[in-house]
Amino acid sequence: MDNIKYELTEADIPHTWYNPAVDVGGIAPILDPATRQPVSLDALARSMPPALVEQELSSEPEFEIPGPVRQLYAQWRSTPLFRARRLEKALDTPARIYYKFEGVAPTGSFKPNTALAQAYYNKQAGKTGLVGETGAGQWGSAVALAGALFDMKTKVFMVRVSFEQKPYRRTLMETYGSICTASPSTETESGRAVLAERPDHPGSLGVAKSEALQFAMANPEYGYTRGSGLNHVCAHQSVIGQEAVKQFELADDYPDIVVGAAGGGSNLAGLAFPFLRKKLAGGQDVRLIAVEPAACPTLTRGRIAYDHADSAGLTPLFRMHTLGHKFIPPAVHAGGLRAHNIAQVVSRAVETGLMEAIAVRQNDCFEAGVLFARAEGIVPAPESTHAIRGAVNEALRCREEGVGKTILLGLSGHGDFDLVAYQKYLAGTLSDDALSDQALQDGLDSIPSPVLV
Amino acid sequence: MDNIKYELTEADIPHTWYNPAVDVGGIAPILDPATRQPVSLDALARSMPPALVEQELSSEPEFEIPGPVRQLYAQWRSTPLFRARRLEKALDTPARIYYKFEGVAPTGSFKPNTALAQAYYNKQAGKTGLVGETGAGQWGSAVALAGALFDMKTKVFMVRVSFEQKPYRRTLMETYGSICTASPSTETESGRAVLAERPDHPGSLGVAKSEALQFAMANPEYGYTRGSGLNHVCAHQSVIGQEAVKQFELADDYPDIVVGAAGGGSNLAGLAFPFLRKKLAGGQDVRLIAVEPAACPTLTRGRIAYDHADSAGLTPLFRMHTLGHKFIPPAVHAGGLRAHNIAQVVSRAVETGLMEAIAVRQNDCFEAGVLFARAEGIVPAPESTHAIRGAVNEALRCREEGVGKTILLGLSGHGDFDLVAYQKYLAGTLSDDALSDQALQDGLDSIPSPVLV
Repeated sequence: MDNIKYELTEADIPHTWYNPAVDVGGIAPILDPATRQPVSLDALARSMPPALVEQELSSEPEFEIPGPVRQLYAQWRSTPLFRARRLEKALDTPARIYYKFEGVAPTGSFKPNTALAQAYYNKQAGKTGLVGETGAGQWGSAVALAGALFDMKTKVFMVRVSFEQKPYRRTLMETYGSICTASPSTETESGRAVLAERPDHPGSLGVAKSEALQFAMANPEYGYTRGSGLNHVCAHQSVIGQEAVKQFELADDYPDIVVGAAGGGSNLAGLAFPFLRKKLAGGQDVRLIAVEPAACPTLTRGRIAYDHADSAGLTPLFRMHTLGHKFIPPAVHAGGLRAHNIAQVVSRAVETGLMEAIAVRQNDCFEAGVLFARAEGIVPAPESTHAIRGAVNEALRCREEGVGKTILLGLSGHGDFDLVAYQKYLAGTLSDDALSDQALQDGLDSIPSPVLV
Repeated sequence: MDNIKYELTEADIPHTWYNPAVDVGGIAPILDPATRQPVSLDALARSMPPALVEQELSSEPEFEIPGPVRQLYAQWRSTPLFRARRLEKALDTPARIYYKFEGVAPTGSFKPNTALAQAYYNKQAGKTGLVGETGAGQWGSAVALAGALFDMKTKVFMVRVSFEQKPYRRTLMETYGSICTASPSTETESGRAVLAERPDHPGSLGVAKSEALQFAMANPEYGYTRGSGLNHVCAHQSVIGQEAVKQFELADDYPDIVVGAAGGGSNLAGLAFPFLRKKLAGGQDVRLIAVEPAACPTLTRGRIAYDHADSAGLTPLFRMHTLGHKFIPPAVHAGGLRAHNIAQVVSRAVETGLMEAIAVRQNDCFEAGVLFARAEGIVPAPESTHAIRGAVNEALRCREEGVGKTILLGLSGHGDFDLVAYQKYLAGTLSDDALSDQALQDGLDSIPSPVLV
């Protein structure tokens, strides 16, 4: 018995995005850091198009997906849902394991699901360009792709150390026509300030974000784009879970457990919340599990408090799990999970017990990733290995207990651009980048005081 | 109007492979270099399983695809056929351009179509391992994947210069569980002989092939695998064209022109020959165009003669277009097209006028590749940019002539592992690696004499 692939016809690709805020009973208002009062619509509208402001604050359960976005989705969606029989066999488990594979998108991850949407709304609002920041390059690639497909120019500020060490992601963006700039740069005030203090500054996601925001303010024809965190971004990712729900109908099965990697939160929300919605509507019970790196344990060791989403403190305050906006995680290879904070909707789901959270170590994730690659033929992104580790743990528990549960894991992307990490793992030289109590405390101490919860 | 994707249901994935030899009226016998007489079945059976020997020499029109191979195909097949409306718009052409995209396979190219088949038959014949040689790594990755999926150990001899300069392809193979060895190595007689003469030898595909063959002879539990050239390999690739034929029915259209990149010949044969078969059976006329690099102009400047398939002269003699088995092409980035020879079936099609051939320059191909990436969102493999160049040329001719032809191009793989070439192209530092008359003459002079045609 081999694997089975479940795909949908084009007609069954979702026509709406789910608003995840609805499923967690709403989210706390976003606050102005100066006044600590809710930010105004006008203030939000200064950095995002009206349609996205509306989605961000909406209490509607669904938003219609614009035709042109859905047409572009159809180039690689539905993404396949696989029954991983070979992995089950390798684990000798009675569990039924499924994975939803987002790596079939042209840039190899789930990120274009929202990049296309943000490009569309920004173009509709009169923007002719898009700007964003990127660390390892996943988000920057998605912005570059979206710009190419919507005929918009794109500008990406890429953390300098990645810009220099990972030239291929940068070349990918440039091949799509993007202008990719190492951050800190001399092009923005905040970049220049950082360089004045330290000319060889290696860059950080926080600095790159500040540069992208300032670039958008100085060049109003560019719309600023967001790779994760905000509610509308999580909503756009709901196509993942909505498709999975329909694909489970084809499989005549239903997950007892849904496992996703937890970074900024949008992939996890997109995968899990459509199942949560069914459960809340009286459907079958389902355990939702967020898996985060032990090196950046936002949900398992962070606090729920109002904090900035960027390290420089330029953004408003969001109520969420946070390790403090000055927290600097060890340099684990799952760059997409190195966030001090997480989307409000995911934070709220964990706070209210709708979702569980665990933290796992880097080497244990790569062990699961290599097992997966050899069984399934797909090399997972380092971020995705966290979901695999979580699913493998559950499958092994099923074996111990002799229980045949159905497990769905979110395979958020492929690892073709991350093979240097596998090289280290296979050579036995991958560190576990343990998090010190001091680093954790330093981070938590940066939560704005007096602490608002 | 946006792109349209045509996909088949699992039931419509082909159940048989087409034998391309039938479509060109049979191919010339393979000769023993010592006796210049046809090689015996027994001699062939020393290096391949009985089922593949049978396919190699068969005059049956079709071979049944074994169930387990077809089940594995279904993990990523059918591969999509796209109507490239955005590319048409970018070219302002009345032509209708379609592309068949093989890059959705886990290793990013068409190679697994035959690697899975060869793994299956070798396992059936009692082999527990697979061995092969690889240059840039496409074939080695496919062998490693096939080994993982059929629970067979795999050994890949990788040309040393690529082994050192392209560590990620090597890591991909190792992640699948393969043992990847730099060639020349000290593990085989031919490797040791080469190293004795030149300890810092950078390796070549010919040397790696000799090592893989000798390794298989010394370790009979390993089956030797072939990435291109032989008839059975071309047959396995016919799933590409067979699917495309059915997808054109869905599109209610039919190609006037089919364009593919010409290297070893199997991708081109697999794409084009199912259309040739329909034409020969009285169907619609279709022009088949082979596009090869000007740096390695096998079909356009080679001779039709009996020659070896490897540089060391270990293989039997095949009647085909050849630049001479000692021909060393300039180091263009389309490594998969740097072959001195081409599959007999493709050679025969060109010889008899069933197929046309053109040679194009590297920079012109990357120009077309970047245009394609920005219009279609997919970065093509350097090999595939040759097919794109050929299709773009035809589409521009349609614009000049005001004729709306239908063009199908074979997008044999994605370029995610080849971004260094795009980096050079975008920086304007990609050479055109012109072929000297002397190098060409040196190659042609190595055709075994007296020359048999």
